[in-house]
Amino acid sequence: MRSAHGLQDELVFLAQLADTARPLALRHFRTGIGADSKGAASGAAYDPVTIADRDIETALRALIAQHRPGDGVLGEEHAASPSRTGRTYVIDPIDGTRAYIAGLPTWCVLIALNDANGPLASVIDQPFTGERFLGITGQSAWLDHQGERTPLATRPVTRLDEMIISTTDPGLFAGAEAEAFSRLAAQARVRRYGLDAYGYAALALGGVDLVVENGLKPWDVAALAPVVTGAGGVITDWRGGPCHEGGQVVAAASPGLHARALEALRDAAR
Amino acid sequence: MRSAHGLQDELVFLAQLADTARPLALRHFRTGIGADSKGAASGAAYDPVTIADRDIETALRALIAQHRPGDGVLGEEHAASPSRTGRTYVIDPIDGTRAYIAGLPTWCVLIALNDANGPLASVIDQPFTGERFLGITGQSAWLDHQGERTPLATRPVTRLDEMIISTTDPGLFAGAEAEAFSRLAAQARVRRYGLDAYGYAALALGGVDLVVENGLKPWDVAALAPVVTGAGGVITDWRGGPCHEGGQVVAAASPGLHARALEALRDAAR
Repeated sequence: MRSAHGLQDELVFLAQLADTARPLALRHFRTGIGADSKGAASGAAYDPVTIADRDIETALRALIAQHRPGDGVLGEEHAASPSRTGRTYVIDPIDGTRAYIAGLPTWCVLIALNDANGPLASVIDQPFTGERFLGITGQSAWLDHQGERTPLATRPVTRLDEMIISTTDPGLFAGAEAEAFSRLAAQARVRRYGLDAYGYAALALGGVDLVVENGLKPWDVAALAPVVTGAGGVITDWRGGPCHEGGQVVAAASPGLHARALEALRDAAR
Repeated sequence: MRSAHGLQDELVFLAQLADTARPLALRHFRTGIGADSKGAASGAAYDPVTIADRDIETALRALIAQHRPGDGVLGEEHAASPSRTGRTYVIDPIDGTRAYIAGLPTWCVLIALNDANGPLASVIDQPFTGERFLGITGQSAWLDHQGERTPLATRPVTRLDEMIISTTDPGLFAGAEAEAFSRLAAQARVRRYGLDAYGYAALALGGVDLVVENGLKPWDVAALAPVVTGAGGVITDWRGGPCHEGGQVVAAASPGLHARALEALRDAAR
Protein backbone atom coordinates (compact mmCIF):
# COMPACT_ATOMS: atom_id res chain seq x y z
CA MET A 1 0.00 0.00 0.00
CA ARG A 2 1.04 3.60 -0.65
CA SER A 3 0.86 6.24 2.07
CA ALA A 4 -0.33 9.78 1.45
CA HIS A 5 3.26 10.94 1.08
CA GLY A 6 4.66 11.08 -2.49
CA LEU A 7 8.24 10.05 -3.22
CA GLN A 8 9.39 13.67 -3.58
CA ASP A 9 8.41 14.28 0.04
CA GLU A 10 10.17 11.07 0.99
CA LEU A 11 13.38 12.14 -0.74
CA VAL A 12 13.32 15.41 1.20
CA PHE A 13 12.86 13.39 4.39
CA LEU A 14 15.65 10.96 3.44
CA ALA A 15 17.97 13.96 2.98
CA GLN A 16 16.85 15.32 6.37
CA LEU A 17 17.70 11.96 7.97
CA ALA A 18 21.13 12.00 6.28
CA ASP A 19 21.71 15.59 7.45
CA THR A 20 21.02 14.43 11.01
CA ALA A 21 23.42 11.50 10.69
CA ARG A 22 26.36 13.49 9.28
CA PRO A 23 27.67 15.28 12.40
CA LEU A 24 27.08 12.16 14.52
CA ALA A 25 29.14 10.09 12.09
CA LEU A 26 31.94 12.66 11.83
CA ARG A 27 32.19 13.27 15.60
CA HIS A 28 33.95 9.93 16.12
CA PHE A 29 35.76 9.64 12.76
CA ARG A 30 39.57 9.89 12.94
CA THR A 31 39.42 10.70 16.63
CA GLY A 32 42.92 9.28 16.95
CA ILE A 33 44.50 12.29 15.21
CA GLY A 34 45.45 15.64 16.67
CA ALA A 35 46.50 16.52 20.19
CA ASP A 36 43.01 17.32 21.52
CA SER A 37 41.53 13.90 21.04
CA LYS A 38 44.41 11.78 22.32
CA GLY A 39 42.74 11.18 25.69
CA ALA A 40 39.55 9.88 24.19
CA ALA A 41 41.33 7.73 21.62
CA SER A 42 43.57 5.98 24.11
CA GLY A 43 40.76 5.00 26.51
CA ALA A 44 40.49 1.23 26.46
CA ALA A 45 36.69 1.24 26.31
CA TYR A 46 36.44 3.85 23.53
CA ASP A 47 35.01 2.20 20.43
CA PRO A 48 34.31 5.04 17.98
CA VAL A 49 32.40 3.17 15.30
CA THR A 50 30.05 1.44 17.77
CA ILE A 51 29.22 4.76 19.42
CA ALA A 52 28.62 6.42 16.05
CA ASP A 53 26.47 3.47 14.92
CA ARG A 54 24.24 3.66 18.00
CA ASP A 55 24.01 7.46 18.12
CA ILE A 56 22.93 7.66 14.48
CA GLU A 57 20.33 4.90 14.67
CA THR A 58 18.85 6.36 17.87
CA ALA A 59 18.60 9.84 16.31
CA LEU A 60 17.08 8.57 13.05
CA ARG A 61 14.52 6.40 14.86
CA ALA A 62 13.41 9.44 16.89
CA LEU A 63 12.99 11.54 13.72
CA ILE A 64 11.05 8.77 11.96
CA ALA A 65 8.80 8.24 14.99
CA GLN A 66 8.08 11.99 14.99
CA HIS A 67 7.54 12.58 11.26
CA ARG A 68 6.47 9.16 9.94
CA PRO A 69 4.81 7.60 13.02
CA GLY A 70 3.17 4.68 11.20
CA ASP A 71 6.23 3.59 9.23
CA GLY A 72 8.40 0.73 10.42
CA VAL A 73 12.13 0.84 11.09
CA LEU A 74 14.66 -1.91 10.46
CA GLY A 75 18.21 -1.14 11.58
CA GLU A 76 21.39 -2.94 12.44
CA GLU A 77 21.59 -1.77 16.05
CA HIS A 78 18.08 -2.02 17.58
CA ALA A 79 15.08 -4.36 17.34
CA ALA A 80 12.80 -3.81 14.33
CA SER A 81 9.76 -1.53 14.75
CA PRO A 82 6.78 -2.96 12.85
CA SER A 83 5.11 -0.93 10.08
CA ARG A 84 1.42 0.06 10.08
CA THR A 85 1.61 1.72 6.65
CA GLY A 86 3.39 -0.94 4.62
CA ARG A 87 6.49 1.28 4.49
CA THR A 88 9.68 0.65 6.43
CA TYR A 89 12.88 2.67 6.80
CA VAL A 90 15.93 0.44 6.58
CA ILE A 91 19.06 1.90 8.18
CA ASP A 92 22.74 0.97 8.29
CA PRO A 93 24.16 3.82 10.39
CA ILE A 94 27.81 3.15 9.45
CA ASP A 95 28.29 0.81 6.49
CA GLY A 96 31.99 0.00 6.06
CA THR A 97 33.04 -0.03 9.71
CA ARG A 98 36.56 -1.23 8.77
CA ALA A 99 37.07 1.76 6.47
CA TYR A 100 35.74 4.00 9.27
CA ILE A 101 38.22 2.75 11.87
CA ALA A 102 41.08 2.89 9.33
CA GLY A 103 40.35 6.59 8.68
CA LEU A 104 39.37 6.05 5.02
CA PRO A 105 36.70 8.13 3.24
CA THR A 106 34.72 5.18 1.83
CA TRP A 107 32.28 4.28 4.64
CA CYS A 108 28.67 5.42 4.22
CA VAL A 109 25.41 6.08 6.02
CA LEU A 110 22.66 4.03 4.32
CA ILE A 111 18.96 4.87 4.56
CA ALA A 112 16.26 3.30 2.38
CA LEU A 113 12.50 3.47 2.27
CA ASN A 114 11.02 0.06 1.47
CA ASP A 115 7.51 -1.14 0.79
CA ALA A 116 6.48 -4.80 0.68
CA ASN A 117 8.13 -5.20 -2.75
CA GLY A 118 11.48 -3.78 -1.73
CA PRO A 119 13.25 -0.40 -1.78
CA LEU A 120 11.44 2.62 -3.29
CA ALA A 121 14.05 5.32 -2.70
CA SER A 122 17.30 5.70 -0.79
CA VAL A 123 20.31 7.75 0.16
CA ILE A 124 23.95 6.60 0.31
CA ASP A 125 25.74 9.39 2.18
CA GLN A 126 29.48 9.92 2.70
CA PRO A 127 29.75 12.61 5.38
CA PHE A 128 33.52 13.23 5.11
CA THR A 129 33.62 13.91 1.36
CA GLY A 130 30.14 15.45 1.48
CA GLU A 131 28.91 13.16 -1.31
CA ARG A 132 25.23 12.28 -1.17
CA PHE A 133 23.95 9.68 -3.66
CA LEU A 134 20.14 9.57 -3.96
CA GLY A 135 17.96 7.31 -6.08
CA ILE A 136 14.43 6.28 -6.98
CA THR A 137 14.20 2.61 -7.93
CA GLY A 138 14.22 2.16 -11.72
CA GLN A 139 13.75 5.88 -12.37
CA SER A 140 16.64 8.21 -11.59
CA ALA A 141 19.64 8.77 -9.38
CA TRP A 142 21.81 11.77 -8.73
CA LEU A 143 24.77 13.00 -6.71
CA ASP A 144 24.54 16.07 -4.48
CA HIS A 145 28.04 17.39 -3.77
CA GLN A 146 29.26 20.87 -2.86
CA GLY A 147 25.97 22.49 -3.80
CA GLU A 148 25.81 20.83 -7.22
CA ARG A 149 23.40 18.13 -8.37
CA THR A 150 24.71 15.74 -11.06
CA PRO A 151 22.64 12.99 -12.69
CA LEU A 152 24.20 9.55 -12.26
CA ALA A 153 24.65 7.08 -15.10
CA THR A 154 26.51 3.79 -15.20
CA ARG A 155 29.08 3.14 -17.97
CA PRO A 156 27.74 1.26 -21.01
CA VAL A 157 30.16 -1.62 -20.45
CA THR A 158 29.01 -5.09 -21.50
CA ARG A 159 32.27 -7.07 -21.84
CA LEU A 160 33.94 -8.76 -18.89
CA ASP A 161 37.42 -7.77 -20.12
CA GLU A 162 36.45 -4.07 -20.11
CA MET A 163 34.98 -4.01 -16.63
CA ILE A 164 36.25 -2.68 -13.32
CA ILE A 165 35.13 -5.25 -10.72
CA SER A 166 34.78 -4.69 -6.99
CA THR A 167 34.07 -6.76 -3.91
CA THR A 168 34.50 -5.85 -0.26
CA ASP A 169 36.81 -8.75 0.61
CA PRO A 170 37.70 -11.63 -1.75
CA GLY A 171 38.49 -13.63 1.41
CA LEU A 172 34.75 -13.75 2.25
CA PHE A 173 34.14 -16.21 -0.58
CA ALA A 174 34.77 -19.93 -0.08
CA GLY A 175 34.41 -23.08 -2.23
CA ALA A 176 32.31 -22.63 -5.36
CA GLU A 177 31.73 -18.95 -4.58
CA ALA A 178 35.48 -18.31 -4.40
CA GLU A 179 36.05 -20.13 -7.70
CA ALA A 180 33.26 -18.21 -9.43
CA PHE A 181 34.51 -14.86 -8.15
CA SER A 182 38.11 -15.64 -9.11
CA ARG A 183 37.06 -16.56 -12.64
CA LEU A 184 35.20 -13.27 -12.99
CA ALA A 185 37.90 -11.15 -11.36
CA ALA A 186 40.63 -12.68 -13.56
CA GLN A 187 38.83 -11.37 -16.66
CA ALA A 188 38.38 -7.82 -15.34
CA ARG A 189 40.47 -4.87 -16.51
CA VAL A 190 40.83 -3.59 -12.91
CA ARG A 191 39.95 -5.02 -9.46
CA ARG A 192 39.06 -2.89 -6.38
CA TYR A 193 38.46 -4.14 -2.84
CA GLY A 194 37.17 -2.91 0.51
CA LEU A 195 34.49 -0.49 -0.62
CA ASP A 196 31.26 -1.84 0.92
CA ALA A 197 28.33 0.35 -0.23
CA TYR A 198 30.68 2.95 -1.73
CA GLY A 199 31.43 0.42 -4.49
CA TYR A 200 27.77 0.53 -5.59
CA ALA A 201 27.84 4.34 -5.49
CA ALA A 202 30.96 4.22 -7.68
CA LEU A 203 29.04 1.95 -10.06
CA ALA A 204 26.27 4.56 -10.29
CA LEU A 205 28.98 7.19 -10.95
CA GLY A 206 30.25 5.27 -13.98
CA GLY A 207 33.49 4.23 -12.24
CA VAL A 208 33.10 0.62 -11.11
CA ASP A 209 31.17 -1.68 -13.51
CA LEU A 210 30.44 -4.84 -11.51
CA VAL A 211 30.09 -5.48 -7.77
CA VAL A 212 29.88 -9.07 -6.54
CA GLU A 213 29.27 -9.86 -2.86
CA ASN A 214 27.78 -12.43 -0.53
CA GLY A 215 26.52 -12.57 3.04
CA LEU A 216 24.85 -9.14 2.94
CA LYS A 217 22.18 -8.25 5.51
CA PRO A 218 18.90 -6.46 4.68
CA TRP A 219 20.29 -3.14 6.02
CA ASP A 220 23.48 -3.54 3.91
CA VAL A 221 21.54 -3.89 0.70
CA ALA A 222 18.30 -1.84 0.84
CA ALA A 223 19.87 1.52 -0.05
CA LEU A 224 21.79 0.09 -3.01
CA ALA A 225 19.01 -0.73 -5.49
CA PRO A 226 17.44 2.74 -5.87
CA VAL A 227 20.84 4.33 -6.60
CA VAL A 228 22.07 1.49 -8.87
CA THR A 229 18.85 1.03 -10.88
CA GLY A 230 18.14 4.79 -10.93
CA ALA A 231 21.52 5.22 -12.66
CA GLY A 232 20.69 2.53 -15.26
CA GLY A 233 22.36 -0.41 -13.56
CA VAL A 234 20.97 -3.83 -12.60
CA ILE A 235 21.10 -5.38 -9.12
CA THR A 236 19.87 -8.87 -8.20
CA ASP A 237 20.90 -11.94 -6.28
CA TRP A 238 23.23 -14.41 -8.04
CA ARG A 239 20.18 -16.20 -9.55
CA GLY A 240 18.85 -12.99 -11.06
CA GLY A 241 16.05 -12.56 -8.51
CA PRO A 242 15.35 -9.81 -5.96
CA CYS A 243 18.13 -9.20 -3.46
CA HIS A 244 16.62 -6.75 -0.98
CA GLU A 245 16.72 -9.29 1.82
CA GLY A 246 20.49 -9.66 1.44
CA GLY A 247 22.66 -12.71 0.76
CA GLN A 248 24.44 -13.03 -2.58
CA VAL A 249 24.31 -9.75 -4.51
CA VAL A 250 25.53 -8.81 -7.99
CA ALA A 251 25.24 -5.26 -9.37
CA ALA A 252 26.17 -4.46 -12.97
CA ALA A 253 26.55 -1.31 -15.06
CA SER A 254 24.42 -2.73 -17.91
CA PRO A 255 21.95 -5.57 -18.56
CA GLY A 256 24.48 -7.20 -20.89
CA LEU A 257 27.23 -7.22 -18.28
CA HIS A 258 24.74 -8.47 -15.68
CA ALA A 259 23.79 -11.42 -17.90
CA ARG A 260 27.46 -12.36 -18.38
CA ALA A 261 28.10 -12.09 -14.64
CA LEU A 262 25.10 -14.30 -13.77
CA GLU A 263 26.39 -16.91 -16.21
CA ALA A 264 29.81 -16.87 -14.53
CA LEU A 265 28.28 -17.08 -11.03
CA ARG A 266 25.65 -19.73 -11.87
CA ASP A 267 27.35 -22.74 -10.30
CA ALA A 268 27.74 -20.92 -6.99
CA ALA A 269 24.27 -19.31 -6.86
CA ARG A 270 22.10 -20.37 -3.93
CA MET B 1 74.69 19.96 -0.15
CA ARG B 2 72.04 22.41 1.04
CA SER B 3 70.74 25.23 -1.13
CA ALA B 4 70.06 28.71 0.18
CA HIS B 5 66.38 27.85 0.59
CA GLY B 6 65.28 26.67 4.04
CA LEU B 7 62.71 23.89 4.40
CA GLN B 8 59.94 26.32 5.38
CA ASP B 9 60.31 27.97 1.98
CA GLU B 10 60.33 24.56 0.38
CA LEU B 11 57.09 23.57 2.11
CA VAL B 12 55.43 26.71 0.80
CA PHE B 13 56.68 25.81 -2.68
CA LEU B 14 55.50 22.18 -2.33
CA ALA B 15 52.04 23.52 -1.44
CA GLN B 16 52.17 25.83 -4.46
CA LEU B 17 53.01 22.86 -6.69
CA ALA B 18 50.11 20.87 -5.18
CA ASP B 19 47.76 23.85 -5.71
CA THR B 20 48.77 23.86 -9.38
CA ALA B 21 48.15 20.12 -9.72
CA ARG B 22 44.68 20.09 -8.12
CA PRO B 23 42.51 21.53 -10.91
CA LEU B 24 44.47 19.58 -13.55
CA ALA B 25 43.81 16.35 -11.62
CA LEU B 26 40.13 17.10 -11.04
CA ARG B 27 39.44 18.18 -14.63
CA HIS B 28 39.53 14.56 -15.84
CA PHE B 29 38.27 12.81 -12.68
CA ARG B 30 34.83 11.17 -13.01
CA THR B 31 34.38 12.62 -16.47
CA GLY B 32 32.02 9.75 -17.25
CA ILE B 33 29.25 11.23 -15.08
CA GLY B 34 26.72 13.90 -15.95
CA ALA B 35 25.24 14.83 -19.30
CA ASP B 36 27.84 17.46 -20.29
CA SER B 37 30.82 15.15 -20.35
CA LYS B 38 29.27 12.19 -22.15
CA GLY B 39 30.83 13.16 -25.47
CA ALA B 40 34.33 13.34 -24.07
CA ALA B 41 33.95 10.15 -22.05
CA SER B 42 32.74 8.04 -24.95
CA GLY B 43 35.56 9.01 -27.31
CA ALA B 44 37.63 5.91 -27.94
CA ALA B 45 40.94 7.75 -27.57
CA TYR B 46 40.00 9.55 -24.34
CA ASP B 47 42.21 8.27 -21.52
CA PRO B 48 41.52 10.57 -18.57
CA VAL B 49 44.26 9.44 -16.20
CA THR B 50 47.02 9.58 -18.81
CA ILE B 51 46.02 13.11 -19.79
CA ALA B 52 45.90 14.21 -16.15
CA ASP B 53 49.28 12.57 -15.47
CA ARG B 54 50.96 14.39 -18.36
CA ASP B 55 49.28 17.76 -17.78
CA ILE B 56 50.30 17.80 -14.13
CA GLU B 57 53.90 16.78 -14.67
CA THR B 58 54.31 19.33 -17.48
CA ALA B 59 52.89 22.13 -15.31
CA LEU B 60 54.98 21.20 -12.27
CA ARG B 61 58.19 20.95 -14.31
CA ALA B 62 57.55 24.44 -15.69
CA LEU B 63 57.03 25.87 -12.18
CA ILE B 64 60.16 24.16 -10.86
CA ALA B 65 62.23 25.37 -13.85
CA GLN B 66 61.01 28.91 -13.12
CA HIS B 67 61.37 29.01 -9.32
CA ARG B 68 64.06 26.39 -8.59
CA PRO B 69 66.09 26.44 -11.81
CA GLY B 70 69.04 24.47 -10.46
CA ASP B 71 67.04 21.66 -8.88
CA GLY B 72 66.51 18.37 -10.67
CA VAL B 73 63.20 16.73 -11.50
CA LEU B 74 62.40 13.03 -11.51
CA GLY B 75 58.89 12.14 -12.63
CA GLU B 76 56.95 9.20 -13.96
CA GLU B 77 56.05 10.74 -17.30
CA HIS B 78 59.13 12.53 -18.67
CA ALA B 79 62.91 12.00 -18.73
CA ALA B 80 64.76 13.05 -15.57
CA SER B 81 66.25 16.56 -15.41
CA PRO B 82 69.64 16.48 -13.66
CA SER B 83 70.21 18.53 -10.49
CA ARG B 84 72.92 21.21 -10.14
CA THR B 85 72.10 21.90 -6.46
CA GLY B 86 71.96 18.37 -5.04
CA ARG B 87 68.20 18.71 -4.66
CA THR B 88 65.65 16.94 -6.84
CA TYR B 89 61.86 17.14 -6.99
CA VAL B 90 60.32 13.69 -7.33
CA ILE B 91 56.82 13.67 -8.79
CA ASP B 92 54.09 11.08 -9.24
CA PRO B 93 51.34 13.17 -10.85
CA ILE B 94 48.54 10.62 -10.23
CA ASP B 95 49.43 7.87 -7.77
CA GLY B 96 46.63 5.28 -7.67
CA THR B 97 45.57 5.38 -11.31
CA ARG B 98 43.16 2.45 -10.78
CA ALA B 99 41.34 4.34 -8.00
CA TYR B 100 41.25 7.39 -10.28
CA ILE B 101 39.60 5.58 -13.18
CA ALA B 102 37.17 3.81 -10.81
CA GLY B 103 35.99 7.20 -9.45
CA LEU B 104 37.29 6.56 -5.91
CA PRO B 105 38.67 9.34 -3.65
CA THR B 106 41.92 7.56 -2.72
CA TRP B 107 44.35 8.51 -5.53
CA CYS B 108 46.92 11.19 -4.72
CA VAL B 109 49.35 13.69 -6.21
CA LEU B 110 52.83 13.00 -4.79
CA ILE B 111 55.60 15.59 -4.70
CA ALA B 112 58.83 15.20 -2.71
CA LEU B 113 62.02 17.19 -2.39
CA ASN B 114 65.02 14.86 -2.15
CA ASP B 115 68.69 15.47 -1.51
CA ALA B 116 71.41 12.85 -2.03
CA ASN B 117 70.35 11.07 1.19
CA GLY B 118 66.68 10.81 0.28
CA PRO B 119 63.47 12.79 0.87
CA LEU B 120 63.62 15.98 2.98
CA ALA B 121 59.99 17.08 2.76
CA SER B 122 56.90 16.14 0.80
CA VAL B 123 53.23 16.56 0.08
CA ILE B 124 50.63 13.82 -0.44
CA ASP B 125 47.61 15.64 -1.86
CA GLN B 126 44.07 14.33 -2.45
CA PRO B 127 42.37 16.96 -4.62
CA PHE B 128 38.81 15.58 -4.42
CA THR B 129 38.56 15.43 -0.62
CA GLY B 130 40.82 18.48 -0.28
CA GLU B 131 43.16 16.64 2.09
CA ARG B 132 46.78 17.74 1.98
CA PHE B 133 49.30 15.72 4.01
CA LEU B 134 52.68 17.45 4.46
CA GLY B 135 55.79 16.23 6.24
CA ILE B 136 59.39 16.94 7.12
CA THR B 137 61.45 13.76 7.39
CA GLY B 138 61.84 12.69 11.04
CA GLN B 139 60.45 15.95 12.37
CA SER B 140 56.75 16.65 11.90
CA ALA B 141 53.75 16.03 9.68
CA TRP B 142 50.36 17.63 9.48
CA LEU B 143 47.08 17.57 7.57
CA ASP B 144 45.66 20.70 5.95
CA HIS B 145 41.93 20.22 5.32
CA GLN B 146 39.09 22.72 5.00
CA GLY B 147 41.19 25.55 6.38
CA GLU B 148 42.32 23.62 9.46
CA ARG B 149 45.81 22.30 10.21
CA THR B 150 45.99 19.14 12.35
CA PRO B 151 49.23 17.54 13.55
CA LEU B 152 49.55 13.92 12.41
CA ALA B 153 50.54 11.09 14.74
CA THR B 154 50.55 7.35 14.16
CA ARG B 155 48.78 5.03 16.64
CA PRO B 156 51.03 3.54 19.36
CA VAL B 157 50.31 0.00 18.16
CA THR B 158 53.10 -2.57 18.61
CA ARG B 159 51.26 -5.92 18.43
CA LEU B 160 50.50 -7.65 15.15
CA ASP B 161 47.05 -8.74 16.36
CA GLU B 162 46.06 -5.12 17.09
CA MET B 163 47.14 -3.71 13.73
CA ILE B 164 45.23 -2.61 10.67
CA ILE B 165 47.33 -3.77 7.71
CA SER B 166 47.18 -2.46 4.16
CA THR B 167 48.66 -3.31 0.79
CA THR B 168 47.67 -2.10 -2.65
CA ASP B 169 47.06 -5.53 -4.13
CA PRO B 170 47.81 -8.84 -2.39
CA GLY B 171 47.97 -10.38 -5.88
CA LEU B 172 51.22 -8.46 -6.55
CA PHE B 173 53.13 -10.78 -4.19
CA ALA B 174 54.38 -14.17 -5.38
CA GLY B 175 56.36 -17.04 -3.83
CA ALA B 176 58.12 -16.19 -0.57
CA GLU B 177 56.75 -12.63 -0.64
CA ALA B 178 53.18 -13.91 -0.87
CA GLU B 179 53.75 -16.34 2.01
CA ALA B 180 55.31 -13.64 4.19
CA PHE B 181 52.51 -11.18 3.49
CA SER B 182 49.81 -13.79 4.11
CA ARG B 183 51.34 -14.70 7.48
CA LEU B 184 51.35 -11.04 8.49
CA ALA B 185 47.88 -10.28 7.15
CA ALA B 186 46.39 -13.32 8.89
CA GLN B 187 47.44 -11.89 12.26
CA ALA B 188 46.01 -8.41 11.63
CA ARG B 189 42.79 -7.15 13.19
CA VAL B 190 41.68 -5.59 9.88
CA ARG B 191 42.99 -5.74 6.28
CA ARG B 192 42.56 -2.93 3.69
CA TYR B 193 43.50 -3.05 0.01
CA GLY B 194 43.85 -0.78 -3.00
CA LEU B 195 45.04 2.41 -1.32
CA ASP B 196 48.43 3.13 -2.93
CA ALA B 197 49.95 6.23 -1.26
CA TYR B 198 46.71 7.01 0.57
CA GLY B 199 47.43 4.00 2.80
CA TYR B 200 50.61 5.71 4.06
CA ALA B 201 48.66 8.93 4.65
CA ALA B 202 46.11 6.88 6.63
CA LEU B 203 49.02 5.47 8.66
CA ALA B 204 50.14 9.02 9.49
CA LEU B 205 46.53 9.79 10.48
CA GLY B 206 46.52 6.98 13.05
CA GLY B 207 44.13 4.82 11.00
CA VAL B 208 46.21 2.15 9.25
CA ASP B 209 49.14 0.72 11.28
CA LEU B 210 51.23 -1.25 8.77
CA VAL B 211 51.66 -0.94 5.01
CA VAL B 212 53.58 -3.67 3.16
CA GLU B 213 54.31 -3.37 -0.57
CA ASN B 214 56.77 -4.40 -3.26
CA GLY B 215 57.75 -3.23 -6.72
CA LEU B 216 57.51 0.48 -5.92
CA LYS B 217 59.26 3.02 -8.17
CA PRO B 218 61.25 6.02 -6.85
CA TRP B 219 58.34 8.39 -7.62
CA ASP B 220 55.87 6.09 -5.79
CA VAL B 221 57.89 6.17 -2.60
CA ALA B 222 59.68 9.54 -2.23
CA ALA B 223 56.70 11.46 -0.82
CA LEU B 224 55.89 8.76 1.73
CA ALA B 225 58.83 8.99 4.16
CA PRO B 226 58.50 12.65 5.24
CA VAL B 227 54.79 12.18 6.10
CA VAL B 228 55.23 8.75 7.73
CA THR B 229 58.34 9.59 9.77
CA GLY B 230 57.11 13.11 10.55
CA ALA B 231 54.06 11.51 12.17
CA GLY B 232 56.23 9.16 14.27
CA GLY B 233 56.16 6.14 11.99
CA VAL B 234 59.01 4.10 10.50
CA ILE B 235 59.50 3.36 6.78
CA THR B 236 62.24 1.16 5.32
CA ASP B 237 62.78 -1.61 2.82
CA TRP B 238 62.05 -5.19 3.98
CA ARG B 239 65.65 -5.48 5.28
CA GLY B 240 65.30 -2.36 7.44
CA GLY B 241 67.40 -0.14 5.13
CA PRO B 242 66.53 3.00 3.16
CA CYS B 243 63.69 2.59 0.67
CA HIS B 244 63.65 5.87 -1.25
CA GLU B 245 64.70 4.16 -4.47
CA GLY B 246 61.61 1.93 -4.33
CA GLY B 247 61.29 -1.86 -4.32
CA GLN B 248 60.05 -3.62 -1.19
CA VAL B 249 58.64 -1.13 1.31
CA VAL B 250 57.28 -1.55 4.84
CA ALA B 251 55.85 1.35 6.86
CA ALA B 252 54.83 0.93 10.49
CA ALA B 253 53.05 3.03 13.10
CA SER B 254 55.74 2.36 15.74
CA PRO B 255 59.33 1.06 15.98
CA GLY B 256 58.04 -2.00 17.86
CA LEU B 257 55.55 -2.91 15.16
CA HIS B 258 58.19 -2.26 12.50
CA ALA B 259 60.58 -4.72 14.20
CA ARG B 260 57.89 -7.42 14.30
CA ALA B 261 57.01 -6.82 10.66
CA LEU B 262 60.67 -7.07 9.55
CA GLU B 263 60.97 -10.36 11.40
CA ALA B 264 57.89 -11.72 9.60
CA LEU B 265 59.15 -10.50 6.21
CA ARG B 266 62.80 -11.61 6.67
CA ASP B 267 62.72 -14.73 4.50
CA ALA B 268 61.33 -12.76 1.56
CA ALA B 269 63.51 -9.65 1.90
CA ARG B 270 65.77 -8.95 -1.08
